[in-house]
Amino acid sequence: MPFSAPPADKKSLEEGDAFTPKFDAHGLIVCVTTQASSGEILMLAYMNALALERTLESGVAHYWSRSRQELWRKGDTSGQIQQVLEIRVDCDQDALLLRVDVGGDGKACHTGRKSCFYRKVENGPEGPCLTLSKE
Amino acid sequence: MPFSAPPADKKSLEEGDAFTPKFDAHGLIVCVTTQASSGEILMLAYMNALALERTLESGVAHYWSRSRQELWRKGDTSGQIQQVLEIRVDCDQDALLLRVDVGGDGKACHTGRKSCFYRKVENGPEGPCLTLSKE
Repeated sequence: MPFSAPPADKKSLEEGDAFTPKFDAHGLIVCVTTQASSGEILMLAYMNALALERTLESGVAHYWSRSRQELWRKGDTSGQIQQVLEIRVDCDQDALLLRVDVGGDGKACHTGRKSCFYRKVENGPEGPCLTLSKE
Repeated sequence: MPFSAPPADKKSLEEGDAFTPKFDAHGLIVCVTTQASSGEILMLAYMNALALERTLESGVAHYWSRSRQELWRKGDTSGQIQQVLEIRVDCDQDALLLRVDVGGDGKACHTGRKSCFYRKVENGPEGPCLTLSKE
């Protein structure tokens, strides 16, 4: 499943029905993953063309691990398999949005939390600092 | 407001209260922006240190325009100013999540839509293609 190159004209890119994901210089596209039932943002990760292809073919989220430099089927070791209910792409086709059902314990973060976004950034007297979110 | 370098140990990075955003080789950090009232994902953009600093100081979302290579206070021309209610950071501090109230007509996409993620990717007989989302 080779992906086509983006069209030359902006209107086709933004309004057309051709899926032409734009991978960056490292061959990656950014992907935001949300829990389908609640809309909660679980994580942000990256896909290369292979990971995107596998995700589309299997209906299970695959990413590219930048730290390990390998294809990563989320949940293979944790059981937190992500069944993909919907994939969206943004206007200029350089970002993806996944709506998923999470298997196993329903979490997505390797720290043991449901979402990776568990800390708030807040202005303090000595500059911005982090606090754990209660949500 | 210079940002500190990430700590050497992973535990401090993931569990600590020091905000040490990790900018990429281009000096950018990815940012997902959601509508605070609904949780809807509006857009995905990037910030450099200056944009992040201005956002924290002013409470209004600033990004770095990669296409124009300039600081971009969202809404300056469109009126779609984003008042930031909350900023979150993910476990390894290389992604941000903004919860905003949008001014003007309440939209975020330059195509005239509320969200940039207005198209679904669906498997078709000749491979994946795009359809307009009804939501």
